[in-house]
Amino acid sequence: MSEKVGFIGLGIMGRGMANNLLKAGFSVRVWNRTASRINALVEAGAEAGSSPQDVAAKSDICIVCVSDTPDVEAVILGGNGVVHGAKKGNLVIDCSTISPQRTKTIAAELNEKGIHMLDAPISGGSEGAARGTLSIMVGGDETQFERARPVFEAMGKTITHVGPQGAGQSVKLVNQILVVGNMLAVSEAFVFAQASGLDLRQTLAAVAGGAAGSWMLSNRAPQCYERDWRPGFTINLQQKDLRLVLEAADQLGVPIPGTSLIFNLYRPLEAQGHGEEGNHALIKAIERLAGIEVKAD
Amino acid sequence: MSEKVGFIGLGIMGRGMANNLLKAGFSVRVWNRTASRINALVEAGAEAGSSPQDVAAKSDICIVCVSDTPDVEAVILGGNGVVHGAKKGNLVIDCSTISPQRTKTIAAELNEKGIHMLDAPISGGSEGAARGTLSIMVGGDETQFERARPVFEAMGKTITHVGPQGAGQSVKLVNQILVVGNMLAVSEAFVFAQASGLDLRQTLAAVAGGAAGSWMLSNRAPQCYERDWRPGFTINLQQKDLRLVLEAADQLGVPIPGTSLIFNLYRPLEAQGHGEEGNHALIKAIERLAGIEVKAD
Repeated sequence: MSEKVGFIGLGIMGRGMANNLLKAGFSVRVWNRTASRINALVEAGAEAGSSPQDVAAKSDICIVCVSDTPDVEAVILGGNGVVHGAKKGNLVIDCSTISPQRTKTIAAELNEKGIHMLDAPISGGSEGAARGTLSIMVGGDETQFERARPVFEAMGKTITHVGPQGAGQSVKLVNQILVVGNMLAVSEAFVFAQASGLDLRQTLAAVAGGAAGSWMLSNRAPQCYERDWRPGFTINLQQKDLRLVLEAADQLGVPIPGTSLIFNLYRPLEAQGHGEEGNHALIKAIERLAGIEVKAD
Repeated sequence: MSEKVGFIGLGIMGRGMANNLLKAGFSVRVWNRTASRINALVEAGAEAGSSPQDVAAKSDICIVCVSDTPDVEAVILGGNGVVHGAKKGNLVIDCSTISPQRTKTIAAELNEKGIHMLDAPISGGSEGAARGTLSIMVGGDETQFERARPVFEAMGKTITHVGPQGAGQSVKLVNQILVVGNMLAVSEAFVFAQASGLDLRQTLAAVAGGAAGSWMLSNRAPQCYERDWRPGFTINLQQKDLRLVLEAADQLGVPIPGTSLIFNLYRPLEAQGHGEEGNHALIKAIERLAGIEVKAD
């Protein structure tokens, strides 16, 4: 018999993931801070939990997918939190993207009570969550990783065990440094291309297949020159993750001058109400400085 | 009967390209500033020209592949230059990477005398030149582009007509902005990963297939953590191209803060004798600031 699964956090990502667990045949008990979101999952076959504690008490594996470090600490360690319901031998999986350092502290508190923990941040956007094609970067014990594999396979496609507790979060931050760095390159390149009078589609076709190629170039440059700011990943969430990157880099004594610059370019866009646009709207910061707009004919 | 081809500049790129023209059956007359390099091509079936003027006088299509803007100006417009040998209706193809602005001036001087010109900078490194798999970004008339197609197809694989004279050079600079931007992202990401105690191979495997993916990540990150600085493209050449990017961006009034930062990170490496290492040695600039080395176990 497969293990009973709890799922805490039914946001834009969690909804799709919990749905995919139901589709894969798992018994799933859910909880969300905003209770109205629970109904759709109950209609799809989930049971409604009354608190994180209640969900943890009635499941073997308890997944958490919320926004930021304080949210994870609240639902796991707070009043009515997971720690008060989970039994010895239970497994907590945190799919949120939070501080690697704080992840280790939370894990240590759980481990002390005999509760296992994996950090398993995800990437692939709401589309990936809905389709079950997420990338999942997992930190923690090999044994617990293998135990959780059927659960991961119901939600994602590229599932990588990257090291001990906290390593999943660190790899996720590495991922974010790469994503925004590649997007800055696309931004500068396409504002330069526009100012040079180039045909933007031909330019993309000429460079995308070679050493200049990237996922952001192939997927986000066309959105930029078609002025389509719908988010695969929002600026607000990107900035939340970059704050984690800057904090971790500060603690590690690692210089990230490019990433710091990018944070500062996103900052006014965030402050001026563009936070719900996609992270490719970074190009607007370069466009404003140049005084031109990147737009295909 | 196919057109007779002249080839000026038998450096690391030109050698392979001229060889591939011979293999494709073209009659090729060659010239190089350092005469000793001509012999190997003559042994492979080329004829030796005595000057750029001589090569141009005895060919229909004359290819130039030298280092920088002044070199192109010298072999095309200087004493014994191509312009003094080429006949009305001849075609000059410049495969060097030089200033888009000066390209237009050179083209105008040739066009005045009824000589056609295409700018056709290449990417793909010495390997691509040897194998005939270069990417070629072509600016100029459609008619001349079609005329030159058999020649391009003997030397390259991805051949894109990107616009009027100068557009090939502009697209090449767009390509370079992307290449170095992606490499800065890789550099910051992997120094961060090393400082975080991550397994670098597992980290790469976890992120390379998703939104963080790039050609530089897949191909150059492993070279970095294996401390392999052999060049696909040297820092010296990268800096030469970045100087063209900075000059063009200055003329266009386009801000490229990330690219400017990267130029300044490469600069001391160049000055301290690392110029013949590959452009992925950019990571050394971040490593030095962090005081650590990125190295896989």
